[in-house]
Amino acid sequence: MIQEVLVTTQNADGIVHIAPMGVHLIDDQFIILPFRPSTTLDNILQSKTAVINYCDDVRIFAGCLTGRRDWPLSTTEKVQGHYLSSALAHKECELLRIEDDETRPKLYCRAVHSVNHAPFQGFNRAQFAVLEAAILVSRLKMLPLEKIQSEIDYLSIGLTKTAGEKELEAWNWLIAIVDQHKQELTQA
Amino acid sequence: MIQEVLVTTQNADGIVHIAPMGVHLIDDQFIILPFRPSTTLDNILQSKTAVINYCDDVRIFAGCLTGRRDWPLSTTEKVQGHYLSSALAHKECELLRIEDDETRPKLYCRAVHSVNHAPFQGFNRAQFAVLEAAILVSRLKMLPLEKIQSEIDYLSIGLTKTAGEKELEAWNWLIAIVDQHKQELTQA
Repeated sequence: MIQEVLVTTQNADGIVHIAPMGVHLIDDQFIILPFRPSTTLDNILQSKTAVINYCDDVRIFAGCLTGRRDWPLSTTEKVQGHYLSSALAHKECELLRIEDDETRPKLYCRAVHSVNHAPFQGFNRAQFAVLEAAILVSRLKMLPLEKIQSEIDYLSIGLTKTAGEKELEAWNWLIAIVDQHKQELTQA
Repeated sequence: MIQEVLVTTQNADGIVHIAPMGVHLIDDQFIILPFRPSTTLDNILQSKTAVINYCDDVRIFAGCLTGRRDWPLSTTEKVQGHYLSSALAHKECELLRIEDDETRPKLYCRAVHSVNHAPFQGFNRAQFAVLEAAILVSRLKMLPLEKIQSEIDYLSIGLTKTAGEKELEAWNWLIAIVDQHKQELTQA
Protein backbone atom coordinates (compact mmCIF):
# COMPACT_ATOMS: atom_id res chain seq x y z
CA MET A 1 0.00 0.00 0.00
CA ILE A 2 1.29 3.42 -0.94
CA GLN A 3 0.53 6.52 1.16
CA GLU A 4 0.98 9.97 -0.38
CA VAL A 5 2.73 11.97 2.30
CA LEU A 6 5.20 14.79 2.86
CA VAL A 7 8.67 13.72 3.99
CA THR A 8 10.69 16.25 6.01
CA THR A 9 14.43 15.74 6.36
CA GLN A 10 17.28 17.97 7.34
CA ASN A 11 20.99 18.28 6.66
CA ALA A 12 23.85 18.72 9.16
CA ASP A 13 23.23 22.48 9.20
CA GLY A 14 19.62 21.95 10.21
CA ILE A 15 18.22 23.13 6.86
CA VAL A 16 14.85 21.41 6.46
CA HIS A 17 13.68 19.97 3.13
CA ILE A 18 10.02 19.14 2.42
CA ALA A 19 9.20 16.60 -0.31
CA PRO A 20 5.87 15.08 -1.42
CA MET A 21 6.33 11.32 -1.82
CA GLY A 22 4.55 8.02 -2.17
CA VAL A 23 5.74 5.93 0.77
CA HIS A 24 5.30 2.15 0.73
CA LEU A 25 3.89 0.59 3.87
CA ILE A 26 4.83 -3.06 4.49
CA ASP A 27 3.85 -4.38 7.92
CA ASP A 28 5.35 -1.83 10.31
CA GLN A 29 8.10 -0.66 7.95
CA PHE A 30 8.06 2.31 5.62
CA ILE A 31 9.99 2.30 2.36
CA ILE A 32 10.96 5.77 1.19
CA LEU A 33 12.12 5.86 -2.46
CA PRO A 34 13.84 9.17 -3.19
CA PHE A 35 15.28 9.74 -6.64
CA ARG A 36 19.04 9.80 -7.11
CA PRO A 37 20.25 12.57 -6.87
CA SER A 38 17.94 14.39 -4.44
CA THR A 39 18.11 16.43 -1.24
CA THR A 40 15.85 13.93 0.54
CA LEU A 41 18.24 11.07 -0.30
CA ASP A 42 21.31 13.05 0.83
CA ASN A 43 19.63 14.12 4.07
CA ILE A 44 18.39 10.65 5.06
CA LEU A 45 21.77 9.04 4.31
CA GLN A 46 23.45 11.69 6.41
CA SER A 47 21.05 11.96 9.35
CA LYS A 48 19.71 8.36 9.33
CA THR A 49 16.28 9.80 10.10
CA ALA A 50 13.18 11.03 8.29
CA VAL A 51 9.82 12.43 9.35
CA ILE A 52 6.63 11.30 7.61
CA ASN A 53 3.88 13.94 7.69
CA TYR A 54 0.24 13.00 7.14
CA CYS A 55 -1.21 16.26 5.85
CA ASP A 56 -4.56 17.06 4.31
CA ASP A 57 -3.53 20.61 3.34
CA VAL A 58 -2.96 19.95 -0.36
CA ARG A 59 -1.38 23.38 -0.80
CA ILE A 60 1.85 21.89 0.59
CA PHE A 61 1.86 19.15 -2.09
CA ALA A 62 1.08 21.66 -4.87
CA GLY A 63 3.38 24.25 -3.29
CA CYS A 64 6.45 21.99 -3.34
CA LEU A 65 5.92 21.51 -7.10
CA THR A 66 5.45 25.21 -7.81
CA GLY A 67 8.28 26.82 -5.84
CA ARG A 68 6.39 27.37 -2.56
CA ARG A 69 8.47 25.43 -0.06
CA ASP A 70 8.16 27.62 3.02
CA TRP A 71 5.64 25.97 5.37
CA PRO A 72 5.43 26.24 9.17
CA LEU A 73 7.49 23.60 10.99
CA SER A 74 7.65 22.31 14.55
CA THR A 75 10.47 20.49 16.33
CA THR A 76 10.24 16.70 16.58
CA GLU A 77 10.45 14.90 19.92
CA LYS A 78 12.45 11.67 19.51
CA VAL A 79 14.62 12.27 16.45
CA GLN A 80 16.51 15.41 15.48
CA GLY A 81 14.23 17.03 12.92
CA HIS A 82 11.04 18.89 12.17
CA TYR A 83 7.47 18.05 11.23
CA LEU A 84 4.93 20.17 9.37
CA SER A 85 2.88 22.13 11.91
CA SER A 86 -0.32 21.53 9.94
CA ALA A 87 0.12 17.73 9.81
CA LEU A 88 -2.86 15.77 11.15
CA ALA A 89 -0.34 13.16 12.28
CA HIS A 90 3.37 12.51 11.92
CA LYS A 91 5.84 9.67 12.42
CA GLU A 92 9.46 10.14 13.41
CA CYS A 93 11.47 7.43 11.69
CA GLU A 94 14.95 5.95 11.77
CA LEU A 95 16.72 4.42 8.79
CA LEU A 96 17.06 0.62 9.13
CA ARG A 97 18.70 -0.42 5.87
CA ILE A 98 19.21 0.56 2.24
CA GLU A 99 18.47 -1.46 -0.89
CA ASP A 100 20.53 0.41 -3.45
CA ASP A 101 19.34 1.25 -6.94
CA GLU A 102 20.67 3.46 -9.74
CA THR A 103 17.48 5.53 -9.98
CA ARG A 104 15.55 5.12 -6.73
CA PRO A 105 17.24 3.45 -3.74
CA LYS A 106 14.84 1.86 -1.25
CA LEU A 107 15.26 3.27 2.24
CA TYR A 108 13.67 0.99 4.83
CA CYS A 109 12.59 2.97 7.89
CA ARG A 110 10.82 2.30 11.17
CA ALA A 111 8.78 4.74 13.24
CA VAL A 112 10.23 5.39 16.69
CA HIS A 113 7.54 7.92 17.61
CA SER A 114 4.02 8.65 16.31
CA VAL A 115 1.82 11.62 17.11
CA ASN A 116 -1.89 12.06 16.29
CA HIS A 117 -2.41 15.84 16.21
CA ALA A 118 -5.87 16.39 14.75
CA PRO A 119 -8.78 14.27 13.44
CA PHE A 120 -9.17 13.13 9.82
CA GLN A 121 -11.84 15.28 8.16
CA GLY A 122 -13.15 12.66 5.72
CA PHE A 123 -12.41 12.21 2.06
CA ASN A 124 -12.59 15.28 -0.13
CA ARG A 125 -12.74 14.79 -3.89
CA ALA A 126 -11.08 18.15 -4.50
CA GLN A 127 -8.06 17.12 -2.43
CA PHE A 128 -7.76 14.01 -4.58
CA ALA A 129 -8.07 16.11 -7.73
CA VAL A 130 -5.24 18.38 -6.56
CA LEU A 131 -3.07 15.38 -5.68
CA GLU A 132 -3.61 13.78 -9.09
CA ALA A 133 -2.99 17.12 -10.82
CA ALA A 134 0.24 17.47 -8.81
CA ILE A 135 1.35 14.04 -10.05
CA LEU A 136 0.49 15.15 -13.62
CA VAL A 137 2.50 18.36 -13.20
CA SER A 138 5.50 16.40 -11.95
CA ARG A 139 5.40 14.39 -15.21
CA LEU A 140 4.43 17.24 -17.52
CA LYS A 141 7.35 16.82 -19.91
CA MET A 142 6.83 13.07 -20.26
CA LEU A 143 3.14 13.20 -21.21
CA PRO A 144 1.31 14.21 -24.40
CA LEU A 145 -0.62 17.48 -24.08
CA GLU A 146 -3.89 15.78 -25.02
CA LYS A 147 -3.67 13.33 -22.12
CA ILE A 148 -2.81 16.13 -19.68
CA GLN A 149 -5.79 18.21 -20.83
CA SER A 150 -8.28 15.34 -20.69
CA GLU A 151 -7.17 14.40 -17.16
CA ILE A 152 -7.35 18.01 -15.97
CA ASP A 153 -10.86 18.26 -17.45
CA TYR A 154 -11.93 15.08 -15.65
CA LEU A 155 -10.40 16.12 -12.32
CA SER A 156 -11.93 19.58 -12.45
CA ILE A 157 -15.44 18.05 -12.14
CA GLY A 158 -14.88 16.71 -8.61
CA LEU A 159 -12.82 19.77 -7.75
CA THR A 160 -15.48 22.33 -8.64
CA LYS A 161 -18.14 20.45 -6.71
CA THR A 162 -16.30 19.89 -3.44
CA ALA A 163 -13.34 22.27 -2.98
CA GLY A 164 -12.72 24.58 -0.07
CA GLU A 165 -10.44 27.63 -0.32
CA LYS A 166 -7.19 25.72 0.24
CA GLU A 167 -7.98 23.22 -2.50
CA LEU A 168 -8.87 25.99 -4.99
CA GLU A 169 -5.65 27.85 -4.19
CA ALA A 170 -3.54 24.71 -4.70
CA TRP A 171 -5.40 23.83 -7.91
CA ASN A 172 -4.79 27.31 -9.36
CA TRP A 173 -1.04 27.04 -8.68
CA LEU A 174 -0.92 23.78 -10.62
CA ILE A 175 -3.10 24.98 -13.50
CA ALA A 176 -0.80 28.00 -13.92
CA ILE A 177 2.11 25.58 -14.51
CA VAL A 178 0.05 23.53 -16.99
CA ASP A 179 -0.95 26.70 -18.86
CA GLN A 180 2.66 27.88 -18.98
CA HIS A 181 3.71 24.49 -20.37
CA LYS A 182 1.00 24.71 -23.05
CA GLN A 183 2.20 28.18 -24.05
CA GLU A 184 5.79 26.99 -24.30
CA LEU A 185 4.72 24.11 -26.55
CA THR A 186 2.69 26.46 -28.78
CA GLN A 187 5.60 28.88 -29.12
CA ALA A 188 8.13 26.12 -29.76
CA MET B 1 -16.33 22.35 1.21
CA ILE B 2 -17.79 18.86 0.90
CA GLN B 3 -16.48 15.93 2.97
CA GLU B 4 -17.27 12.38 1.87
CA VAL B 5 -18.25 10.61 5.06
CA LEU B 6 -20.48 7.88 6.46
CA VAL B 7 -23.54 9.06 8.34
CA THR B 8 -24.98 6.72 10.99
CA THR B 9 -28.51 7.29 12.24
CA GLN B 10 -31.02 5.16 14.09
CA ASN B 11 -34.77 4.86 14.40
CA ALA B 12 -36.91 4.64 17.56
CA ASP B 13 -36.27 0.88 17.74
CA GLY B 14 -32.51 1.44 17.75
CA ILE B 15 -32.00 0.00 14.26
CA VAL B 16 -28.86 1.66 12.88
CA HIS B 17 -28.59 2.82 9.27
CA ILE B 18 -25.22 3.55 7.59
CA ALA B 19 -25.15 5.87 4.55
CA PRO B 20 -22.21 7.26 2.52
CA MET B 21 -22.79 10.98 1.96
CA GLY B 22 -21.19 14.22 0.91
CA VAL B 23 -21.62 16.53 3.88
CA HIS B 24 -21.24 20.30 3.44
CA LEU B 25 -19.10 22.09 5.98
CA ILE B 26 -19.88 25.79 6.55
CA ASP B 27 -18.06 27.34 9.49
CA ASP B 28 -18.89 25.02 12.38
CA GLN B 29 -22.14 23.70 10.91
CA PHE B 30 -22.68 20.55 8.87
CA ILE B 31 -25.36 20.33 6.21
CA ILE B 32 -26.56 16.79 5.60
CA LEU B 33 -28.62 16.43 2.39
CA PRO B 34 -30.42 13.09 2.37
CA PHE B 35 -32.70 12.27 -0.56
CA ARG B 36 -36.45 12.22 -0.05
CA PRO B 37 -37.55 9.50 0.72
CA SER B 38 -34.66 7.84 2.62
CA THR B 39 -33.99 6.06 5.89
CA THR B 40 -31.38 8.67 6.84
CA LEU B 41 -33.95 11.48 6.43
CA ASP B 42 -36.61 9.62 8.45
CA ASN B 43 -34.14 8.78 11.23
CA ILE B 44 -32.72 12.29 11.60
CA LEU B 45 -36.19 13.89 11.62
CA GLN B 46 -37.28 11.41 14.28
CA SER B 47 -34.19 11.35 16.52
CA LYS B 48 -32.95 14.92 15.87
CA THR B 49 -29.41 13.51 15.86
CA ALA B 50 -26.86 12.11 13.43
CA VAL B 51 -23.33 10.77 13.71
CA ILE B 52 -20.70 11.74 11.13
CA ASN B 53 -17.99 9.07 10.71
CA TYR B 54 -14.62 9.93 9.19
CA CYS B 55 -13.52 6.55 7.85
CA ASP B 56 -10.66 5.57 5.57
CA ASP B 57 -11.88 1.98 5.19
CA VAL B 58 -13.35 2.37 1.71
CA ARG B 59 -14.97 -1.07 1.95
CA ILE B 60 -17.76 0.57 3.97
CA PHE B 61 -18.47 3.10 1.19
CA ALA B 62 -18.39 0.39 -1.50
CA GLY B 63 -20.20 -2.06 0.79
CA CYS B 64 -23.20 0.23 1.35
CA LEU B 65 -23.64 0.42 -2.45
CA THR B 66 -23.33 -3.33 -2.98
CA GLY B 67 -25.56 -4.74 -0.24
CA ARG B 68 -22.90 -5.07 2.49
CA ARG B 69 -24.29 -2.93 5.29
CA ASP B 70 -23.21 -4.89 8.36
CA TRP B 71 -20.18 -3.08 9.86
CA PRO B 72 -19.01 -3.06 13.49
CA LEU B 73 -20.57 -0.26 15.56
CA SER B 74 -19.83 1.31 18.93
CA THR B 75 -22.13 3.28 21.23
CA THR B 76 -21.87 7.07 21.11
CA GLU B 77 -21.23 9.14 24.24
CA LYS B 78 -23.30 12.34 24.10
CA VAL B 79 -26.18 11.52 21.75
CA GLN B 80 -28.22 8.33 21.54
CA GLY B 81 -26.67 6.51 18.63
CA HIS B 82 -23.74 4.55 17.22
CA TYR B 83 -20.53 5.27 15.36
CA LEU B 84 -18.52 3.00 13.09
CA SER B 85 -15.89 1.22 15.17
CA SER B 86 -13.29 1.63 12.42
CA ALA B 87 -13.78 5.42 12.10
CA LEU B 88 -10.59 7.44 12.48
CA ALA B 89 -12.75 10.16 14.01
CA HIS B 90 -16.44 10.82 14.56
CA LYS B 91 -18.73 13.71 15.44
CA GLU B 92 -21.98 13.36 17.35
CA CYS B 93 -24.39 15.96 15.98
CA GLU B 94 -27.74 17.46 16.85
CA LEU B 95 -30.22 18.79 14.29
CA LEU B 96 -30.50 22.59 14.41
CA ARG B 97 -32.94 23.39 11.61
CA ILE B 98 -34.33 22.16 8.31
CA GLU B 99 -34.43 23.90 4.95
CA ASP B 100 -37.07 21.88 3.15
CA ASP B 101 -36.80 20.76 -0.47
CA GLU B 102 -38.77 18.36 -2.66
CA THR B 103 -35.73 16.25 -3.53
CA ARG B 104 -33.03 16.90 -0.92
CA PRO B 105 -33.93 18.80 2.27
CA LYS B 106 -30.98 20.54 3.94
CA LEU B 107 -30.49 19.40 7.51
CA TYR B 108 -28.31 21.86 9.43
CA CYS B 109 -26.46 20.12 12.26
CA ARG B 110 -23.93 21.01 14.91
CA ALA B 111 -21.41 18.73 16.60
CA VAL B 112 -21.94 18.37 20.33
CA HIS B 113 -19.07 15.87 20.75
CA SER B 114 -16.01 15.01 18.66
CA VAL B 115 -13.63 12.09 19.09
CA ASN B 116 -10.27 11.55 17.40
CA HIS B 117 -9.73 7.77 17.49
CA ALA B 118 -6.75 7.09 15.22
CA PRO B 119 -4.29 9.05 13.08
CA PHE B 120 -4.85 9.91 9.40
CA GLN B 121 -2.65 7.63 7.28
CA GLY B 122 -2.03 10.04 4.41
CA PHE B 123 -3.68 10.21 1.03
CA ASN B 124 -4.03 6.96 -0.87
CA ARG B 125 -4.85 7.17 -4.57
CA ALA B 126 -6.59 3.79 -4.47
CA GLN B 127 -8.97 4.96 -1.75
CA PHE B 128 -10.00 7.89 -3.91
CA ALA B 129 -10.33 5.64 -6.95
CA VAL B 130 -12.74 3.46 -4.96
CA LEU B 131 -14.64 6.53 -3.79
CA GLU B 132 -14.98 7.88 -7.34
CA ALA B 133 -15.98 4.44 -8.61
CA ALA B 134 -18.61 4.26 -5.85
CA ILE B 135 -20.04 7.59 -7.00
CA LEU B 136 -20.10 6.22 -10.59
CA VAL B 137 -21.89 3.06 -9.45
CA SER B 138 -24.51 5.12 -7.62
CA ARG B 139 -25.26 6.88 -10.94
CA LEU B 140 -24.87 3.86 -13.21
CA LYS B 141 -28.30 4.12 -14.81
CA MET B 142 -27.92 7.83 -15.55
CA LEU B 143 -24.58 7.60 -17.38
CA PRO B 144 -23.61 6.34 -20.85
CA LEU B 145 -21.63 3.08 -20.78
CA GLU B 146 -18.73 4.67 -22.64
CA LYS B 147 -18.23 7.34 -19.96
CA ILE B 148 -18.41 4.75 -17.18
CA GLN B 149 -15.80 2.56 -18.88
CA SER B 150 -13.39 5.40 -19.59
CA GLU B 151 -13.58 6.63 -15.99
CA ILE B 152 -13.07 3.12 -14.59
CA ASP B 153 -10.05 2.72 -16.89
CA TYR B 154 -8.60 6.00 -15.68
CA LEU B 155 -9.22 5.26 -11.99
CA SER B 156 -7.75 1.77 -12.25
CA ILE B 157 -4.29 3.27 -12.94
CA GLY B 158 -3.96 4.89 -9.50
CA LEU B 159 -5.69 1.92 -7.92
CA THR B 160 -3.34 -0.73 -9.28
CA LYS B 161 -0.28 1.26 -8.23
CA THR B 162 -1.24 2.08 -4.65
CA ALA B 163 -3.97 -0.23 -3.29
CA GLY B 164 -3.80 -2.31 -0.16
CA GLU B 165 -6.03 -5.34 0.43
CA LYS B 166 -9.06 -3.38 1.65
CA GLU B 167 -9.00 -1.09 -1.38
CA LEU B 168 -8.76 -4.05 -3.80
CA GLU B 169 -11.65 -5.81 -2.08
CA ALA B 170 -13.85 -2.69 -2.27
CA TRP B 171 -12.87 -2.07 -5.91
CA ASN B 172 -13.79 -5.63 -6.89
CA TRP B 173 -17.24 -5.30 -5.30
CA LEU B 174 -17.90 -2.18 -7.39
CA ILE B 175 -16.49 -3.63 -10.63
CA ALA B 176 -18.80 -6.64 -10.23
CA ILE B 177 -21.78 -4.24 -10.26
CA VAL B 178 -20.43 -2.41 -13.32
CA ASP B 179 -19.90 -5.73 -15.13
CA GLN B 180 -23.41 -6.88 -14.25
CA HIS B 181 -24.81 -3.59 -15.59
CA LYS B 182 -22.87 -4.05 -18.85
CA GLN B 183 -24.24 -7.58 -19.24
CA GLU B 184 -27.80 -6.38 -18.67
CA LEU B 185 -27.36 -3.71 -21.33
CA THR B 186 -25.94 -6.23 -23.81
CA GLN B 187 -28.80 -8.65 -23.21
CA ALA B 188 -31.48 -5.94 -23.41
